[in-house]
Amino acid sequence: MSLIEDLVVAYRVLAEHEVIDAYGHVSARSDRDPSRYLLARHVAPELVVAADILEYDLDSNPIEAGDRVSVRERFIHGEIYKARPEVMCVVHNHSPSVVPFSATSQPMRPVFHMAAFIGLGVPNFEIRDVQKGTDLLVKTPYLGEALARTLGGHPAALMRGHGSVTVGETVARAVGRSIYLEMNARMQLQAMLIAGPGGAFKFMDDAEVSESAARQEYDRAWHLWRTRALKRMAVG
Amino acid sequence: MSLIEDLVVAYRVLAEHEVIDAYGHVSARSDRDPSRYLLARHVAPELVVAADILEYDLDSNPIEAGDRVSVRERFIHGEIYKARPEVMCVVHNHSPSVVPFSATSQPMRPVFHMAAFIGLGVPNFEIRDVQKGTDLLVKTPYLGEALARTLGGHPAALMRGHGSVTVGETVARAVGRSIYLEMNARMQLQAMLIAGPGGAFKFMDDAEVSESAARQEYDRAWHLWRTRALKRMAVG
Amino acid sequence: MSLIEDLVVAYRVLAEHEVIDAYGHVSARSDRDPSRYLLARHVAPELVVAADILEYDLDSNPIEAGDRVSVRERFIHGEIYKARPEVMCVVHNHSPSVVPFSATSQPMRPVFHMAAFIGLGVPNFEIRDVQKGTDLLVKTPYLGEALARTLGGHPAALMRGHGSVTVGETVARAVGRSIYLEMNARMQLQAMLIAGPGGAFKFMDDAEVSESAARQEYDRAWHLWRTRALKRMAVG
Amino acid sequence: MSLIEDLVVAYRVLAEHEVIDAYGHVSARSDRDPSRYLLARHVAPELVVAADILEYDLDSNPIEAGDRVSVRERFIHGEIYKARPEVMCVVHNHSPSVVPFSATSQPMRPVFHMAAFIGLGVPNFEIRDVQKGTDLLVKTPYLGEALARTLGGHPAALMRGHGSVTVGETVARAVGRSIYLEMNARMQLQAMLIAGPGGAFKFMDDAEVSESAARQEYDRAWHLWRTRALKRMAVG
Repeated sequence: MSLIEDLVVAYRVLAEHEVIDAYGHVSARSDRDPSRYLLARHVAPELVVAADILEYDLDSNPIEAGDRVSVRERFIHGEIYKARPEVMCVVHNHSPSVVPFSATSQPMRPVFHMAAFIGLGVPNFEIRDVQKGTDLLVKTPYLGEALARTLGGHPAALMRGHGSVTVGETVARAVGRSIYLEMNARMQLQAMLIAGPGGAFKFMDDAEVSESAARQEYDRAWHLWRTRALKRMAVG
Repeated sequence: MSLIEDLVVAYRVLAEHEVIDAYGHVSARSDRDPSRYLLARHVAPELVVAADILEYDLDSNPIEAGDRVSVRERFIHGEIYKARPEVMCVVHNHSPSVVPFSATSQPMRPVFHMAAFIGLGVPNFEIRDVQKGTDLLVKTPYLGEALARTLGGHPAALMRGHGSVTVGETVARAVGRSIYLEMNARMQLQAMLIAGPGGAFKFMDDAEVSESAARQEYDRAWHLWRTRALKRMAVG
Repeated sequence: MSLIEDLVVAYRVLAEHEVIDAYGHVSARSDRDPSRYLLARHVAPELVVAADILEYDLDSNPIEAGDRVSVRERFIHGEIYKARPEVMCVVHNHSPSVVPFSATSQPMRPVFHMAAFIGLGVPNFEIRDVQKGTDLLVKTPYLGEALARTLGGHPAALMRGHGSVTVGETVARAVGRSIYLEMNARMQLQAMLIAGPGGAFKFMDDAEVSESAARQEYDRAWHLWRTRALKRMAVG
Repeated sequence: MSLIEDLVVAYRVLAEHEVIDAYGHVSARSDRDPSRYLLARHVAPELVVAADILEYDLDSNPIEAGDRVSVRERFIHGEIYKARPEVMCVVHNHSPSVVPFSATSQPMRPVFHMAAFIGLGVPNFEIRDVQKGTDLLVKTPYLGEALARTLGGHPAALMRGHGSVTVGETVARAVGRSIYLEMNARMQLQAMLIAGPGGAFKFMDDAEVSESAARQEYDRAWHLWRTRALKRMAVG
């Protein structure tokens, strides 16, 4: 399976999991040229096909766009690829249980072992700290760079009132992180409610996080998600 | 696509998002005569077809109804079109996460950037203040006018114990506002629970709201929703 | 449409709304003999077909069962039909948001106008008060009679740790009450959470309840639900 | 229906109920040799077919694996079959409303009569107590044995930050327990929220639990779930 096919599948998988709805996007660093990345044009994720995939340089200029319109927030992707040479895939989403955490000062915690990567740290990007009066969209190189700086070396970052970004060394890993970040958010809120005001809930400790996060490839899940997505795409 | 087709699609889209169930309705001001509006007869939204669409004057008298029964709450639409010349589409729904807010004194806040319009103000219509002992339905010109007065110049209003109304300069905008009002309600409740009793959550400030709300057309979402709806209608 | 067909549709509608899962049942008083009622044999609701419908006398003895096994809780139905001559349909379900209310002392309140009937009173049946050490099933005439006594003249009753029963003068009304009882339970919990500890939420007052509940037939909803159910049954 | 077919159905049923997602597994003790058990290879549950089912001895060595890869957590199954001769089926899952309970000190309680077995006790396995710095997976005989010891004679055990295990004398019973454990978790959290901070909720008492749990076979539910699963498998 080519990288473009993998990327189309990633769009479909994220849409099926309702991690991205009509908005949100996923990109992959080119496997031929590390200074290029692939990202779909301005179209809803669940409708993406191979012909919608555009190639960009790391300043987020499209290479051969033709009449295909670029998404305004492509700088999220370009600036992260610049700052993180090992990252091969970036997902930006509005996943519904994560946005509420971004609106509070409660940190996300690795409640669920499938989301152990959260224990590596998930900072919260407050766009207001770098520019006032925006529409919250990361639509300039300046904002993209600021987001990449907040992300730092972490696997994910929240974006206040907007969503989150997850990254990975493979498409499966970045996609899996988006899906399990959403699941963990639901579980963490429930654990907080069960524990009650002032009650404590347990999460993975540092030793458990490092044992799990480094190896978690989401391979069995990715195989399932890809199988389902290809089946739906064949049906049309 | 004609306005009637767009309106049929709007019914289907709102039903698919469970923003309207067997009840609720969406209307559009006529594109030929601004003193007329289009609204489906008394039938469940997800069953609406072009032949169900009736035309009304702004006093909500049907023009050529034949044996098609009008919905009792059509005065919601007529009275808002009278009061708001720029409004081209009105949605009335019972969206499930919004009704609980209408039963409290907690104001809705723009937690999620896709629902920035909430920052322009979403008043709560208490029908009991204008008429006691109703069944909560806005089924007279008097009640419709009172609701329109509460709505004022805002993009949406809650209706206590009943639902809400959203308006827009296009069908996409009014429909999008209903869908994102529901999503924001879920996110706001979650943010309140995460923050805990007395804890504060963050929402868009006035500068962010005005930067975002004025331009938000929900165009990419509307394209997706319409594509899906037309596909389902073709399958039958 | 015959009463048997209507009853089969009712099973399917309740299953589709996840108000009943593999268990739960709905009965109708015979339209030929008011001392008889119709109820499906021991089979999961979403699989019910006309041949599964049995006739019972009001002591819940099957008339011509053949090898069809009766549900153990049929006494719920028989005893209510005895006590309430105007009731033509009885639904027993385990609807998931209602069970939690049955486990607390918080009364259900008519938050949502579609569930105005709740304002007529929804008592909670504590089986332990009439028999200790049961499996909570209402599987004897004695327990059925006790439940009917708790229900009294009300439109619905909760059953602690088990579910609820709703009744009506038509199939549409009893089914609609089950569906909107579930929706109202979700909305009431959310309103309580939004209002916060000690915070008050608003519900319909007595005048509003009597204006609404007496006339609410759920006719538009029933038409939609029946249309969908018949379509799915035709597809098989 | 052969045991292998039943087991394939069990995988599909658990996946449909979202009790297991891409991970999780269900095994059955061999009906020909009580010192053997059947378990699918490393593949997502909803894709399991008969050819994926492997046979293991109670030390969890595969008998004729060929190139089929075993799941790492098979020791959960083997060690429980060793310790519990009457157990014929074991389910391990990550069911989403149960994980949050595993992260708190709040015990699960039998709120819903369909989950009466919870009243027999559901201990919480804290892997950190037996080995520090794991990835939380029960992937050695040592950890499997420790889990079996925590489970003791109970019908289910939580696994902190990971999921749960349910057992039964039949496939239907172990599967049903997983599904109703998840439902009860949702109901219990809701009952706790309705009751409010410090408020009490009611659950089945010991006499009710023993009357119900011993006889609960989930037969009507299993018939429905199997019917649905076979239908979906036939469609492909």
